[in-house]
Amino acid sequence: MKKVLVAMALYIGVSAAASAQQNISLPVPEKRPTVEANGDVTFTLVAPEGSDISVKGAFANLQPASVSFTDGEHRILFSGVEPGLYDYWFEVDGVRTLDPSNPYVARDIASLANIFIVPGEGSKWFESKDVPHGSVHQVWYESEGLGGSRRMTVYTPAGYETSTEQYPVLYLLHGMGGDENAWSELGRAVEILDNQIAAGVTKPMIVVMPNGNALRKAAPGCTGDGMYIPEGQHSVDPDRLFEKNFDEIIGYVEANYRVKPGKENRAIAGLSMGGGHSWRISMERPDSFDYVGLFSPAVRWNGMGVNMENDPELVDKLKRQFENAPKFYLIAIGKDDFLLPLNDAYRKMLDDQRFKYEYVESGGGHEWRNWRDYLADFLPKLFN
Amino acid sequence: MKKVLVAMALYIGVSAAASAQQNISLPVPEKRPTVEANGDVTFTLVAPEGSDISVKGAFANLQPASVSFTDGEHRILFSGVEPGLYDYWFEVDGVRTLDPSNPYVARDIASLANIFIVPGEGSKWFESKDVPHGSVHQVWYESEGLGGSRRMTVYTPAGYETSTEQYPVLYLLHGMGGDENAWSELGRAVEILDNQIAAGVTKPMIVVMPNGNALRKAAPGCTGDGMYIPEGQHSVDPDRLFEKNFDEIIGYVEANYRVKPGKENRAIAGLSMGGGHSWRISMERPDSFDYVGLFSPAVRWNGMGVNMENDPELVDKLKRQFENAPKFYLIAIGKDDFLLPLNDAYRKMLDDQRFKYEYVESGGGHEWRNWRDYLADFLPKLFN
Repeated sequence: MKKVLVAMALYIGVSAAASAQQNISLPVPEKRPTVEANGDVTFTLVAPEGSDISVKGAFANLQPASVSFTDGEHRILFSGVEPGLYDYWFEVDGVRTLDPSNPYVARDIASLANIFIVPGEGSKWFESKDVPHGSVHQVWYESEGLGGSRRMTVYTPAGYETSTEQYPVLYLLHGMGGDENAWSELGRAVEILDNQIAAGVTKPMIVVMPNGNALRKAAPGCTGDGMYIPEGQHSVDPDRLFEKNFDEIIGYVEANYRVKPGKENRAIAGLSMGGGHSWRISMERPDSFDYVGLFSPAVRWNGMGVNMENDPELVDKLKRQFENAPKFYLIAIGKDDFLLPLNDAYRKMLDDQRFKYEYVESGGGHEWRNWRDYLADFLPKLFN
Repeated sequence: MKKVLVAMALYIGVSAAASAQQNISLPVPEKRPTVEANGDVTFTLVAPEGSDISVKGAFANLQPASVSFTDGEHRILFSGVEPGLYDYWFEVDGVRTLDPSNPYVARDIASLANIFIVPGEGSKWFESKDVPHGSVHQVWYESEGLGGSRRMTVYTPAGYETSTEQYPVLYLLHGMGGDENAWSELGRAVEILDNQIAAGVTKPMIVVMPNGNALRKAAPGCTGDGMYIPEGQHSVDPDRLFEKNFDEIIGYVEANYRVKPGKENRAIAGLSMGGGHSWRISMERPDSFDYVGLFSPAVRWNGMGVNMENDPELVDKLKRQFENAPKFYLIAIGKDDFLLPLNDAYRKMLDDQRFKYEYVESGGGHEWRNWRDYLADFLPKLFN
């Protein structure tokens, strides 16, 4: 380390000059926000005295334990923050502002938020750890049904490159306004998989995260559409071309990766719109998926309403799926989720028909904090 | 499109509810900043009247053509902005603020900046276009020399998955404070490669972007180091373990990808610290690289000073490299770059020894705008 400090000293001049000419500010010496073991989290922002500063995001419902201004810095302390991964941003005199001292951000649809982790039981799967890491591929497949090449993110478990064995596959689908990066960036899917596979609680598997927005080919900025502003609504396709052409994705994956064939080696799960996708894709392919995870799913049958009560066509499709029932069929949703009534109606129908499924009703609403937990609870159930 | 609008209308309620519960704001309807064909670029920020607002970054040296405040929005217009890719951020009453209406950002060391493109000749290689796209892999290789597994980004050209042929390889190295994501995220390497290969000006090739920071194993947040604040100085290793162990990277790549063997199929290039790495790695392996690109290189021999004048050991190493000279050996640097004197001293020595190289002195300094251009000019020269 001594040598490093010497090098540091020698390089500070260089760094300052480089930074000036690179139009970037010098690296921030102290990590922000500061997180204490007892759950004290302190946010710091350099801003004029008297500025109206609040912390938004995961903290919108919490009250600060203390607010102070010293040496030109505003300090906002929250106490007793539970272990977990949180997003936040500042509002300064009404202006949405990211924390300039925290370079860790995640994009949700068109909005960026900073993120940080309070270590502990509630965050153990989300933290980056020194465990064997899987690879992450961003690849393009040709789609006749949707027209042109489309991008997907593929996770292969640690050791894939050096082994010759085949692996089971989970198809993991994003929600409205999301894209093929949503589960890996917002959902911490890579960290969850690396950590759970290393801990031996989850089987090594390939995880495929396609782009479920039929009107886009890839995440914002990755196609000829350029740097457009992503909008949730645009990602909903009434023609369901994504669901109808899903076999193209399975075909690409099974042609390009060492995949165990068969229903017992295939799982599909998704959140919100992607829960609706997983619901239909598995229903329309009753012999394809032994594991189905519906996270806050938009299980919309005819239009937007809750109008599926024992609809004969729907019941008929589900009968075909459940006569050779999936080994594990999960519905997970938060008690404050606006899609709860829709899912209650769907579950009533499943119950009327005596179709077997697991149901988890968590706290919270239609939010990533729940979806990360649902994935972490779902993965250990797969391919056993 | 009609159906989509219907779906939009039906979903707006859902989206609003979802957004509220997801703690994200609704998507922004209009793309910001607005960029006109004539080079007028208008930045817009909602902030209290009288706020002191300036645009920083690529515009630090430009004066706004007009500044106005209407309907709660500040508008700052710059005229005659040349085609190209630009980074920027706001300063609001002294607080560094990203543009909340522009979700496109790039991180440089510990600082985020928004980015946008003014289309035209100067940006044609940097834009995402509907051309055949290569794949991007983030993989981990085992390093005995540095200890543990380390991450690298690997680009394979469009068609790699479906072909059986072998490809030449460019090793592309980042600068101080960078990581294995720097060239693909800040450097637009993927867009440049996709566009130039599609245009037929650059040969299809594999491009390997390892992490050259001997003291870190991967980009910030991807290892057990957690969400630390990256610092430029820390990435400089006086022991040069990265350069000394570079054969581990070549070995991984040649074992895991369909690579054409031999000096004539291997190139190495890097910026700043990575230019120094490319300089030493190619010098210490005189039979390994036929193409060498030194972009604003930190060609530091003994310590930090310009003290290499015909140093016998250095001359001797270079003699071995140049007696079977690389086909193309490029030094590119900006006339305002703080490393220019160092490179002048190095070039004087190359000239004294009559070693053949190409030299490009551009405008500008030690900055990504130059490095993107250097890469775009370097790639077409490779593997001809």
